[in-house]
Amino acid sequence: MRAVCVIGLGLIGGSILRAATAAGRQAWGATASAADEAAAAADGYAVEDVAAALRRAAAEDALVVLAVPLPSVVSVLRTVAEHAPRARLTDAVSVKQPVIDAVSHHAPFARYVGGHPMAGAAASGWAAGSSTLFHGAAWVVSAVDGTDIEVWSDVARLALDAGAHVVATDPAEHDAAVARISHLPHVLAAVLAAVGADAGPLPLALAAGSFGDGTRVAGSNPELVRAMCEGNGAALLPVLDDALGRLGAARGALASTGSLAATLREGHRGRRQLDGARAAEVRELRLDLTAPDAMAALRRTGTVGGRIVAIDTSTLTAEIPTCDHFRSP
Amino acid sequence: MRAVCVIGLGLIGGSILRAATAAGRQAWGATASAADEAAAAADGYAVEDVAAALRRAAAEDALVVLAVPLPSVVSVLRTVAEHAPRARLTDAVSVKQPVIDAVSHHAPFARYVGGHPMAGAAASGWAAGSSTLFHGAAWVVSAVDGTDIEVWSDVARLALDAGAHVVATDPAEHDAAVARISHLPHVLAAVLAAVGADAGPLPLALAAGSFGDGTRVAGSNPELVRAMCEGNGAALLPVLDDALGRLGAARGALASTGSLAATLREGHRGRRQLDGARAAEVRELRLDLTAPDAMAALRRTGTVGGRIVAIDTSTLTAEIPTCDHFRSP
Repeated sequence: MRAVCVIGLGLIGGSILRAATAAGRQAWGATASAADEAAAAADGYAVEDVAAALRRAAAEDALVVLAVPLPSVVSVLRTVAEHAPRARLTDAVSVKQPVIDAVSHHAPFARYVGGHPMAGAAASGWAAGSSTLFHGAAWVVSAVDGTDIEVWSDVARLALDAGAHVVATDPAEHDAAVARISHLPHVLAAVLAAVGADAGPLPLALAAGSFGDGTRVAGSNPELVRAMCEGNGAALLPVLDDALGRLGAARGALASTGSLAATLREGHRGRRQLDGARAAEVRELRLDLTAPDAMAALRRTGTVGGRIVAIDTSTLTAEIPTCDHFRSP
Repeated sequence: MRAVCVIGLGLIGGSILRAATAAGRQAWGATASAADEAAAAADGYAVEDVAAALRRAAAEDALVVLAVPLPSVVSVLRTVAEHAPRARLTDAVSVKQPVIDAVSHHAPFARYVGGHPMAGAAASGWAAGSSTLFHGAAWVVSAVDGTDIEVWSDVARLALDAGAHVVATDPAEHDAAVARISHLPHVLAAVLAAVGADAGPLPLALAAGSFGDGTRVAGSNPELVRAMCEGNGAALLPVLDDALGRLGAARGALASTGSLAATLREGHRGRRQLDGARAAEVRELRLDLTAPDAMAALRRTGTVGGRIVAIDTSTLTAEIPTCDHFRSP
């Protein structure tokens, strides 16, 4: 099993280091945070300074995982270029195209395959992590033509070892998707929390489940949320426009006809589609990673909502939804 | 303990009937739903037809609770006017001013005090209810000048018997508050669910906690949500405008400066205020229900986020937040 070097030991990086270690791999980490460094070392994990960790990764041909917020990516990539220029490299950043651009500028010889484990928690930092954070979660691995198949497999195996399933996507398709289901929810939660808290104590005294659920992620560290959402600004803008259009249509319908029927019906259908997608029957698909069009075939599995659940030498097993769960229930 | 007659045996009415019975009261119900009627009877509860239930309420001077959706209120009030015209009357409808108007038109001699237990669940109908649904919940009781103190106490005692605490409010203030913390969350959840589901299977395959939480209430029965939100349309419109303004400001800031700092900071502050309100230290306040300005004093306790936790003959005990939890943390 390939060794793993994790740069950044917050919630995500700290959980990756724990999960890789728990899977029996050689794994070590580094972080610019003195607090996370001390906490990880106190828990018995191998922590070095960033340059040393990367030199060791180069010497041992380890997979380097960048688990830092987007604003820190460029400076870490410069260090990668200095100490492990041809590293097997992936990341855990919540947006993919800006990281691809940064790698091509600042670590152009790195063998990079983008990653994004879709798990989180309201709390942040090493102490909030766990080896089981990714159990049952989706872990996106970018599938781009010309990708080094060996590194792609390294990343996918790490995700599977961590208990996740792999979703193979085109980076732009990923960024558009997470704008919808991760970044928009954070913006709407912030708007809802501000509207609810802006009219004195009574509304908050009456707040129950719908407000609590709808504002939960507004409790997350706002600087981390900001880096995540702003880093995907190009994909988030049209999604905000979509939401504004729908909210404006709801407002207009309520004002003119007194009806919210269309808004609530479409929302209910959307939520049932989410439930349907999670409960969908699947068929198994086997893919040969060494086929010339392997990356295109992988991207297609992601587009249709499929997930990769096993990898065996050069053959992948994907689960593809079979029933027509995506149609209106 | 005063007997209780519950009209409507869905989630809320069914839970009130169970809670009143569990508290040792004489309690019976009626419903236009054959399914709910059969389910309640099968569970051993006393169920009659609506007219008979109301005649019994008149004979026993029971408290009548209307637990039907707003669109059904007028027709039930006409039956109340026919069979129990001077009944002690409350309701569990999620909006108050329209019910006040309907009572004054259709059951003008009823001794009405508005109520709104702030609890719910994604499922609906008798089977979804429980005697503990209101434990720890807020149960709004309208405090309007000229209210019959005895009936006000009847309603408050029922709420306390059900394990809730009472929040005394002006009806218009209630309607404005629930537009913010109950009806807006449903509209935003519908918008989010539709945006998330409208771009094919990939976004839903990647959806994790933030999307799941933010769309949960979109899984509720859309007809019930519609009746609730549309019934409070007058108060909901300015709240939708508030949300549209904030979402538009977020969009504008992201497009022009690339920053979502203000939006996310205000949202985080709002969520912390919710958490602060729930954890606030309180002082006890005793109020004499027979004082000439009792209703005004009760409304003030609601406005500042207070809750009534006990009632003893004509003296109430309210808990009033003392620390400055509502300021920015």
